[in-house]
Formats: sequence, C-alpha cells, structure tokens
Amino acid sequence: MPLTLLKISCPDRVGLLARLTTFVAYHGGNLLEVNQFTDPVSKWFFARLAIDTRSLALDSAALHKAFAPLAADLEGEWTIRETKQKMRVVILVSKLDHCLADLLWRWRSGELPIEIPLIISNHQDLQPVVEREGVPFAYVPVTPETKATAFEKMATLFCDAQADLLVLARYMQIFPSELCKEWHGRLINIHHSFLPSFAGANPYKRAYARGVKLIGATCHYATADLDAGPIIDQEVVRVEHFHTPEDMLRLGRDCERMALARGVRYHVEDRVLIHGNRSIVFRD
Amino acid sequence: MPLTLLKISCPDRVGLLARLTTFVAYHGGNLLEVNQFTDPVSKWFFARLAIDTRSLALDSAALHKAFAPLAADLEGEWTIRETKQKMRVVILVSKLDHCLADLLWRWRSGELPIEIPLIISNHQDLQPVVEREGVPFAYVPVTPETKATAFEKMATLFCDAQADLLVLARYMQIFPSELCKEWHGRLINIHHSFLPSFAGANPYKRAYARGVKLIGATCHYATADLDAGPIIDQEVVRVEHFHTPEDMLRLGRDCERMALARGVRYHVEDRVLIHGNRSIVFRD
Amino acid sequence: MPLTLLKISCPDRVGLLARLTTFVAYHGGNLLEVNQFTDPVSKWFFARLAIDTRSLALDSAALHKAFAPLAADLEGEWTIRETKQKMRVVILVSKLDHCLADLLWRWRSGELPIEIPLIISNHQDLQPVVEREGVPFAYVPVTPETKATAFEKMATLFCDAQADLLVLARYMQIFPSELCKEWHGRLINIHHSFLPSFAGANPYKRAYARGVKLIGATCHYATADLDAGPIIDQEVVRVEHFHTPEDMLRLGRDCERMALARGVRYHVEDRVLIHGNRSIVFRD
Amino acid sequence: MPLTLLKISCPDRVGLLARLTTFVAYHGGNLLEVNQFTDPVSKWFFARLAIDTRSLALDSAALHKAFAPLAADLEGEWTIRETKQKMRVVILVSKLDHCLADLLWRWRSGELPIEIPLIISNHQDLQPVVEREGVPFAYVPVTPETKATAFEKMATLFCDAQADLLVLARYMQIFPSELCKEWHGRLINIHHSFLPSFAGANPYKRAYARGVKLIGATCHYATADLDAGPIIDQEVVRVEHFHTPEDMLRLGRDCERMALARGVRYHVEDRVLIHGNRSIVFRD
Repeated sequence: MPLTLLKISCPDRVGLLARLTTFVAYHGGNLLEVNQFTDPVSKWFFARLAIDTRSLALDSAALHKAFAPLAADLEGEWTIRETKQKMRVVILVSKLDHCLADLLWRWRSGELPIEIPLIISNHQDLQPVVEREGVPFAYVPVTPETKATAFEKMATLFCDAQADLLVLARYMQIFPSELCKEWHGRLINIHHSFLPSFAGANPYKRAYARGVKLIGATCHYATADLDAGPIIDQEVVRVEHFHTPEDMLRLGRDCERMALARGVRYHVEDRVLIHGNRSIVFRD
Repeated sequence: MPLTLLKISCPDRVGLLARLTTFVAYHGGNLLEVNQFTDPVSKWFFARLAIDTRSLALDSAALHKAFAPLAADLEGEWTIRETKQKMRVVILVSKLDHCLADLLWRWRSGELPIEIPLIISNHQDLQPVVEREGVPFAYVPVTPETKATAFEKMATLFCDAQADLLVLARYMQIFPSELCKEWHGRLINIHHSFLPSFAGANPYKRAYARGVKLIGATCHYATADLDAGPIIDQEVVRVEHFHTPEDMLRLGRDCERMALARGVRYHVEDRVLIHGNRSIVFRD
Repeated sequence: MPLTLLKISCPDRVGLLARLTTFVAYHGGNLLEVNQFTDPVSKWFFARLAIDTRSLALDSAALHKAFAPLAADLEGEWTIRETKQKMRVVILVSKLDHCLADLLWRWRSGELPIEIPLIISNHQDLQPVVEREGVPFAYVPVTPETKATAFEKMATLFCDAQADLLVLARYMQIFPSELCKEWHGRLINIHHSFLPSFAGANPYKRAYARGVKLIGATCHYATADLDAGPIIDQEVVRVEHFHTPEDMLRLGRDCERMALARGVRYHVEDRVLIHGNRSIVFRD
Repeated sequence: MPLTLLKISCPDRVGLLARLTTFVAYHGGNLLEVNQFTDPVSKWFFARLAIDTRSLALDSAALHKAFAPLAADLEGEWTIRETKQKMRVVILVSKLDHCLADLLWRWRSGELPIEIPLIISNHQDLQPVVEREGVPFAYVPVTPETKATAFEKMATLFCDAQADLLVLARYMQIFPSELCKEWHGRLINIHHSFLPSFAGANPYKRAYARGVKLIGATCHYATADLDAGPIIDQEVVRVEHFHTPEDMLRLGRDCERMALARGVRYHVEDRVLIHGNRSIVFRD
C-alpha cells in the first residue's frame, strides 16, 4: 500500500497530537500507523504518521504546502515523504563483505525498500559480487596522501547518485568530520561492539582480552566523534571462555548484519528521529 | 505523576485519533503517552491515552460522562481510570512460591503499582510467607468432592476483596469455566511453557522428552479452554543437552517470574487490550 | 589446524573417559578440545575428542583400526574423521532463497567448512543464483504423480554426489519415509516455528492467529514423523501486536537462517550426537 | 547425590586429561560430569571433574593426599571439595534489597546450595528482611573517617563467619584494595552495566545519556581496579527511547538479579576458574 509518511519533532505543548491528526483527517487521510513519543526529560514531542496515500485529497506537494504553516507554528522539524519514492542508498565497503552481502540480499528480495545507485570501495575485492547484482561499483582508493581528494571524489559521487543515505558497511576508513556534519543524520555506520564498550579499533580483540561474556554490534549515525553518534540499534550474543577471537569475529558478523539491517530499515522507513545524541526509533 | 488512563477499542474509521485527542485537548488534558494501533487484518482500532490528571478541567466522573457520547458514537469498548486508584489484585497459589515471592517483592518495593487485599491457597504451606508481609491469607482446600463449593467460596472472597484482577501464580487447580467467563480479561495465569507448546500438565517433563533447545513461560488470560487464552507475554531461555528436567524447573522459574511480572504490570497499567484471542500490549 | 575428530556414544561405565583419553595419549595425540556428557537419565555416555592430527603417530586408517577393539568393548557407536576432508553437503530448495543465500555466503567465505557438490530444486527459480556461485544445479520437479520417481532420481543424485549430509533449506516437499530412514542423522531440515509449536504447514499464519509473542525456527534432523525429529538448534524473536503475518515472515527469515546455519555447522564439525529423539550438541 | 569436585588449572601438555581421569578411575570414582578446556592462546589447561562421592574408595582427606603428587607434577592450581560441605557466603548490602531478596529466596528454597552465616550492611534499613529469615545481621556503618576501622571490623567478621565467599549485592562502598587482594577470587560483585561500558558510578544515568538500546549487568570478581576484575556472567535487556532512567533502574534490577544469581551459583558449584583477567565458566 502506498504510504505518505509525516515525521515531526517539536517542543511539547497541549493539543499537539490533536492538531496533527485533525490536519490529516481534514485532508481525508486514513491513518494506518501513528507513533508518538513525548520525552518527559527534554519536554520534546516526536511523531510519525503513516497515511494511506490514496485516501488523501491532496498530492504530496500540496500536502507539504498545506502543512508548512502548522509546522512553523509548532516550531517543528519535519518531513513528508511518499514510500513509492524509495530512498537511494549508497553503500561503502572495504574488504569484508558480510554486511554488504546481507544488505544486497535484503534489497534484491524486496525486504528492504531501497534503491542502491552505487557501491563504493577503497579496494577492488568486492567489485565482482557487486557487479553481478547489476549495481554500479566505484573504486576509490584511500591512502594517507590521497585521503582528502579521495573523499572529495566520493562527495561528488554521493551527489551524482542523488543519495538519501550513506551506509558504512564495515568501511574501514574514518570519515572526514566535514562530511560527517554535512551528512548528519544520513550517514549510518555499523560498529562491531556494543557501544560505548570498545569504541575504536579492534573491538573483538579487546573484548576477548577483557573476558566479556557478551559481544555485540551497534548501528549508529556517524558523527565527527568516532563511534559516539546516536545509536539506532544494537545486537548482542553470548560468548563463553572457549570462544577464541576468531570465533568472536564469526559470531559478531551475525550481530553486525542484524543490527545494520534493522538500522537501515528503520531509517529508510522514516522510523528514526534524532534528538541530540539519542534516537527515537518507532520500530516495526 | 497522577495519570488518567483512557483505553478504547472500536471499529476503525477516518479521523478516530483526531476525535480522541481533540476531546482530551478540549478538556485541557496534557497527553503524556499515546499508544495507538490499527489492526490491518480486522480493521479494528485500539488506543491508550495517558493524561496528566492535574491538567484536566474535569474530575474523573465528569470526564466519564463527557466521553460517553463520543464512545457510543464510535461503538467503542472503553475504560477511564485514574492511577491514584491502584488495582486490587488477588493472588492464588498452591505450594510453589517463586512467582508469589517475586510479585510480593515487586509490590512491597513499589515497583508494581497494586494493592494485594488477599492471597488464597489450596494449601497452608505459604501462609507464613504471606502473613509476614501483612497480607491476609485464605486457606481454601480443593478436593474433587469439594471443588464446586470451594470455588463458590473463592468467588465470594474475590467479591469481598473488591478484586480488579485475579492472578494464578502457579495455582495448580483448573478454574471452573463459569468463573473464567465471569472474570474474562481479569484472570491472569502463568503457564510454564512457551505456548502453544506443551499446554496442559508437566510441560518441563515433556519439553525434556522432546529435546527442545529452548524452554519458556507464558503469561496469558485464562479462558475456559485450558492454556488457550490471549497471551500477554512470553519468556524463553536456552537449554542444552546437559540440562536435566530438574534444571529445566530451575531455569523455567526465572522465565515464569519474568513473564508473570511483566504481564501483571502491563495489565494493571491498562496497557493490554484484548481482541478475540490476541492481545494488544502497549509495553513500557 | 588439521583435526582428527573422534565421536562416540556408549553405555556409561566407570573409567570410560580415562580409557578414551589414554588411548589418544598412547598414540601421541594432543587433545585440543574434549567434550563429554553422561546422561543421568539414560545412563549413556557421549564424547567428542578433537585431536591435533599432526601429533598422532598413526594415520587415520590405522587409528580406526587401533580404536575398533576398544570401541567394540565399550559397545560404542563411533566415528573418526579428519577435518581436512570436508563434509559434502547437498542442499535442497524450492523457491525461497534466504536460507540458501545464507548457506552459500557462509560456504563461500570459508565460515562453513563444507563442500557443496550439488543443489537440487523442484523449481527453476533459483538456478541463476546457484550457478553464478559455480555450484551444479539439478532441477527435479515434483508433482503428485511423479513424486516417487522424482525422489528416486534424487536418491541417485545424492549418491552420485557422494553426499555426507542433505540439507532441506526450506524445501517445501515432504520427504518419503524410506529416504528419511536411509538418511537418518544425515538429513537436516529447517522448520519455521519453535517446535513443537506449529509443526506442519503455515506456522507463521497459525502463530499470528494464536497471538504468540515469540516466533521462531527449529533446525532438526528430519525423520518419518513430520517435524518431530531430534532438534539441533532453535532461535526465537519477540513479536508484538503490530506485527502482521508478513512481518512474521520477515522476522522469521532471520531466525531460520541463524538456526539452520548453526545446526549445519554443529553437524559438519561432528558436534552432534543423536540419542533417541534428543540431540547432544557440543557447541562452539 | 553427594559429589566430589576436582578443579584444576595447569600448563597444557599431552596426556593431561588421561592422567586425571585415570587417577579418578583408579580410585573407583564414577565421573558424572567432566568439563575441560584448553586455551589455545595461553596454552593453559582447565578442568572440573564431578565424581560420585560414594563411588570413591578414599575419603576426601585421603583423596587430597593421593592427588597432591600428581598435581605437583602438573604444576597445577587445584581444589578438591565435597558438595555436602556447602560454601559459606557472607553478603554485603547497602539500602537496595532486590539482589539480596533474590539471593535469599534462592537460598531458602534450596536452589542455591549455600549457607549464609552473616549479612552485613552499612545501613540498618534491611535488618528486618534479613532477620525474619533467621540470618544474623551486622550493622557496620562506613563514613569517610571510619572507613579503615569499619573494613577492619568487617574483615574480622568474615573470618569469624568462616566465609568461603563474599558477595557484594549492590554494596555501595568501594572495597579497600588489600581486602580485594586477600579475597581475590572469593569476592563477587554485581555491577549495574554491561562492562566495560559504564564502569563506576551512575551507569543507568550514563546509559540513558548515551542513548544505548541495551542495558545490562555484570557479575564479576572484584579486584583492586574498580569494575575491572574477571567477569563471570552478564545479562542484558533491550531498552527503547521511551524508557526513562527510572525505567532503566527497574529493568536493570532484573538483569542484576539474574547475573548475580548465576555468578554465585557457578562459583559455589566450583564451576569457575580464573586465569588472569578471564574466567573459565563451566555452566550448568
């Protein structure tokens, strides 16, 4: 069913949800899913309304226009988007392909409602598994010397691809902070530990050394602070004394796949709202 | 914070949530939590609105009266309840005390917002652990011959205790079907398996014999059909080949405690709506 | 590291493990992993010994010969296998490819130490995704009329492929009971529910109708009794009222993938011993 | 069944398990459970052998004597203990009673095979719930000025109580490092986060601020380094954006209870071996 998704966050006040739902009802919109959250700590309001597009008396552009004055009055940050327009997701990888393969399968099978205009890597290893899916592949090597120009080149690629979202699927390069800022809220990373434990390099090795009994993965929005951005989802798995660092790599891969797939899914279905360093996630 | 909880289920139609939230806003109500669900299969609408009691311009009785015409128009089943009036929960036990001890701790510590006017058992074993908490204990033995009169006596006790909810905390007697009907939606049972697996007697023994790798517990509304009522919550734990039936009893106790405590919590916070044999649970 | 795996089950008696480990030590074998289980209910003994192949003074054939008298004395059922000889796994699929894609990825990446000599399907849909991996694909349609000959043909294919293990990766045909018997303990199925709940057809649909709060998947050895064979592993995921049957299909796919991958892994690493309808699984 | 538990860790070498099991068999010992682990990284060997006490030809003292030369030859660290002699566990608490109540229930019901000779607190709040169980309670207030003498007093109490194990059940005082050293491997703490995340004070508050989607608890041996000792067990639970810091406290309590109860259980059943900062835990 084609949906129109209205997402808004704004300061809380009495009658907010009434005004939003009345607005939708006024235009004939049949609400299929409503998620609302009022943060008692920050006194902020968050909502996601999924409307049956066909029930609306207005088209998307007109709805935007009609909603703008209300949103302005509410001092809201908002988006309206139709699901028939799938988000365009550019994926960045290095050499490890487990997250990539998982995303590709979910995309190909239709589970993940996205388009993948481009996959970028700083290595050529994964070119064959990308191209056999019919997805364009760009090889952009990154060396300490070429880092600046490489990322400039990638920034151009993102724009040319009209990307809505960048996904770092075990991309082993640190993103420049200007790019992190420019793509804030549209740059998703998968980190192979349950943050804030083991931020940074070699988390499995450090998890082994610490002797933890749970390892995990964290899907989060990348920010200029390494592994410190808003968390979308986390996944853990039990480990025991007999699990070697190699076993942790293996078990961790499944955590990474699951957390990343869910995080991307929530984002491309407009289920995530960011507030400071916290994420409101209206799960499905 | 004192809350007024409005719970409603009714046939879905356009503008439902707008009408409900507008009603609340009209009476000055500040919405702290709104949960809504439209079942796409049955086309039924469910909502729970948590309103700051102090923000309402009406008292509870007046709010009831004001809401009645709207509810009638929506053909809704509904309740309005203030949380300052805690639900009165009568607990039934036999000889096993793990669920009882858990509920008592959560009640005593204030985690579970309930009153416990009475605990009933068909054995006298648990009388001391009940009475040391200052809770009245009623010993109502049940034998095949006295079953009818025993349950009549208990029905009287429920009424005298002005019970809002009955909890079967490993009460090893089958409730008469008339009582199940009379208390429909207000009679919670904990079954020691992940239903529908191993409904009926000796679930751990049968789980062991079947060689399952997960055991669990199910908190559900009891109905005249044994272990077939609407499920509120379930909990599972992994077992391995080295777990004996006794180990399963031990591990299962924690599942039972957790599932029952959550189920009771959801119920007494008006977070559960029953629809046929399914439960809508707005978790917290 | 090349391992020699000794697996044995036999009636329990005093000194069993001493005799086994002394046998290994006598031949110079360095034990890297020893798993042992004595079932207190059936008084049966199970063990798996992983020996550094290079430390053994005998080659595999000689070790077999040397072990046979001891095994006979213990009335044991046993195998000795070198891991350098990977198990040959024939996979059967219908139209759904999530389990297949997952197994293929784990095989291709080296995570799953198997060879895949053949993939068989009763449909042609998955031929491309199989053949692009360089794996032979056999199309064996099954209709009510041709069922007997189709399975005869497949039985021949299994033998020709020198299969050690058959995996039903969401193969939607019921295996003939003679084949189940012939391949007992070497025929793994993934069922899309947490057995014994929802054995048979349409488990997600029935799970939805029952209103369960957990759905799952079960990896088990197929026997002539449908979905009743020894369970190797199970996986569950929480569901809520807002999950439609389609959502359950989606969430369930990840359970199926995980349970199947683990079950196959345990089998091909000789970590599973069957005893009646129970599985001893020495996890890694 | 009365068990004799032999626990040993030593450098790995060929034939180790054969020598141990042959030793046991030589003295008529029937092995009910054998757990063994060879750490491939440190080349260290760990084992726990559970022997039916009644099958042994020697009493415990004689078995000790008989085993000593073998253990010396293996350069092993070892213990032999009969389960009929339950470990004596002294529990320390402050004001929060959820972990204490849980341990008391498990002890009283016989689930946890321990004796509790004494419970110590720096507050008097929990004296009634302790004394009604018939357990001696010692009130040892700790102020910055009296800290040294308070811990001296407690050290005396531990000895007088002939404690085998000290359990810090949300005891909100930092243990002096000399006491940590003296009780190394016999001092268990429950920390209310999944370590290494949020070591130190106020973990739930910091977890909320970080916006994690999982919170947890860690049962570990306390060492002089705060929250950095060997981990025995961890437990996590999912949280969502709507969970306030108070909700986290509530959900976390169940994690703490579970992780602590398991950790204590593993310890008092001699299932834990410490190696550097890692714990080998032969779970049951």
